[in-house]
Amino acid sequence: MKAKLVLLALGHFAVFAFLTAAGCNRQPAAPAATVPPTAVEQAAAALPSWNDGKAKQAIVNFVARVTKEDSPDFVSPAERIATFDNDGTLWAEQPLYVQFLFAIDRVKALAPQHPEWKDKEPFASLLKGDLNGVLAAGEHSLMAIVASTHSGLTTEEFEKVAKDWIATARHPKTGRLYAEMAYQPMLELLAYLRTNGFRTFIVSGGGIEFMRAFAEQVYGVPPEQVIGSSGKLKFGLRDGTPVLVKVPEIEFIDDKDGKPVAIQKFIGRRPIAAFGNSDGDLQMLQWTAAGTGTRFCLYVHHTDAEREWAYDRQSSIGRLDKGLDEAQAKGWTVVDIKQDWKSIFPPARRGQASNARRPPP
Amino acid sequence: MKAKLVLLALGHFAVFAFLTAAGCNRQPAAPAATVPPTAVEQAAAALPSWNDGKAKQAIVNFVARVTKEDSPDFVSPAERIATFDNDGTLWAEQPLYVQFLFAIDRVKALAPQHPEWKDKEPFASLLKGDLNGVLAAGEHSLMAIVASTHSGLTTEEFEKVAKDWIATARHPKTGRLYAEMAYQPMLELLAYLRTNGFRTFIVSGGGIEFMRAFAEQVYGVPPEQVIGSSGKLKFGLRDGTPVLVKVPEIEFIDDKDGKPVAIQKFIGRRPIAAFGNSDGDLQMLQWTAAGTGTRFCLYVHHTDAEREWAYDRQSSIGRLDKGLDEAQAKGWTVVDIKQDWKSIFPPARRGQASNARRPPP
Repeated sequence: MKAKLVLLALGHFAVFAFLTAAGCNRQPAAPAATVPPTAVEQAAAALPSWNDGKAKQAIVNFVARVTKEDSPDFVSPAERIATFDNDGTLWAEQPLYVQFLFAIDRVKALAPQHPEWKDKEPFASLLKGDLNGVLAAGEHSLMAIVASTHSGLTTEEFEKVAKDWIATARHPKTGRLYAEMAYQPMLELLAYLRTNGFRTFIVSGGGIEFMRAFAEQVYGVPPEQVIGSSGKLKFGLRDGTPVLVKVPEIEFIDDKDGKPVAIQKFIGRRPIAAFGNSDGDLQMLQWTAAGTGTRFCLYVHHTDAEREWAYDRQSSIGRLDKGLDEAQAKGWTVVDIKQDWKSIFPPARRGQASNARRPPP
Repeated sequence: MKAKLVLLALGHFAVFAFLTAAGCNRQPAAPAATVPPTAVEQAAAALPSWNDGKAKQAIVNFVARVTKEDSPDFVSPAERIATFDNDGTLWAEQPLYVQFLFAIDRVKALAPQHPEWKDKEPFASLLKGDLNGVLAAGEHSLMAIVASTHSGLTTEEFEKVAKDWIATARHPKTGRLYAEMAYQPMLELLAYLRTNGFRTFIVSGGGIEFMRAFAEQVYGVPPEQVIGSSGKLKFGLRDGTPVLVKVPEIEFIDDKDGKPVAIQKFIGRRPIAAFGNSDGDLQMLQWTAAGTGTRFCLYVHHTDAEREWAYDRQSSIGRLDKGLDEAQAKGWTVVDIKQDWKSIFPPARRGQASNARRPPP
């Protein structure tokens, strides 16, 4: 799905020094006194994992403005569309995109049915744990992995495979379930926006069918509000029953320019708020910011090497370079994870470490 | 958008003899006594333009079953997805698809800026009112018309053009506004389903941006629940402002096999009810029917030459041939317009005839 990103990603596992981020809203922040006390109180209760600071204040001010009926900035609930990138914005994307880890596990699971893979690249390298060997074969090899692991299945078969994996697979570094690698402050933000009449959409480079397998359970975002990259589907009959089969052909990459295009196609309304963490989200934020009325754009800046990862301008995964400049120039809100987030991940379920496939660091 | 359909359509304006349709539900109809009186009463009030008969009874039985909490057929509101074709199912499609009439009017409106069209096909024929001449130039000529009238505009410019047209243009035969060519019984059905916790989606071969320009006003269906054929969009800057521009390239045809594919892509859930009127809707109904649990499939059969049009197996617009056979074989509900609909169109606004571009018949 995201061959180019994944290709780049595999080349650079290192994480990079963090930069301090300046956070501010596009619209001058209203004095705190103009925000009704109820909104402040509601936000304090709804966003416990956010430290008090510019980012939280900008969010609360924005929500208060667009939901106050007698405000000139009032937006009807139907137009309260908020779009979120997934990888690096709602859950961790280091050291590799989760979907690629899924594809690697699929190759391993399917290997017994494919004895020929032992001598065939990129599978041979991957099965030996040699990711550099996979990379050496180039983009074509990554497409072969995605094609072999994501296609040929019906949409229902794929959903089951993805759901089963998400329910049991664990992060290579933390040993947590992937659902536990979602960012607690962002889970609170999603719920806070929904409580205030927003509809929250995911608009991400990840595969649409893959993300739908967990988005409702993890984020409370139903399938029809998940937009992603997609492979082609083919309608046909299997034993007389209509099925949709995934075929190994990329249809759409929901990244960069693709994000506003997908928003227009799937939603048909311009978001009033957009949330991302990389240059791949920049066009979505630009499109959102360019609408009339009050708009809110936010970048999550990964600045916390201790509790999560620190990376931005030089990272091959989730590079935030042009976006950081534009956020600063336009006064978008930038979350400095180290400063703004009281906690990063939700509490882990019991027994996580003992089930970890790879030992935690 | 629908070049092939339109091509066929232009070749055959005649309407054909009607067939009597047998209507029945896929699941054996529950005895009337099992339907709570409240549901029957609610339906009587909600569906005043439907005659009492098999079709109305099948609708009411289905809704009662899936909404009754202690019923084994109960379906949670989140899964109550109903998909509707547009042309011929929600509004009239004779003598030509409305969107093609829109494109013709666009050529006329743009002609002063294109003096070269006077000598260039298919525009020359079209401007002389010679639709057969347009046809003679083949599919390519129709694509040229669509490209010249739908593309180059930003999505916002196109929306305005389409909304302005829909607000003023009138049907060539009846002199009615197109909003008044919607089927009153189907408007009632849409509202009845929504009252019962359904979300109603349009899944149609028409252009997605064109349909969104009127779907909320006419049908109460918001943009994010309208799925259709699409041309490509290009993201870019105009005078420093981000825009999405329609480019003359077809991206997706939402017809036949395309309908279940689009449903999966946009909604990610299988509908529990689907409504169509032509063979182009068959795969959507098959996909809907093949799900587990109680399902409802309905074909609108155009049998009323006097009050509307009568056409089915031989029609080049909205041909219903294989679909009619399959509906009968599988016991899907078939609406016989002549028998089942008390009235066809909503009351017309005053002054319609005097504003008609072409005299009513």
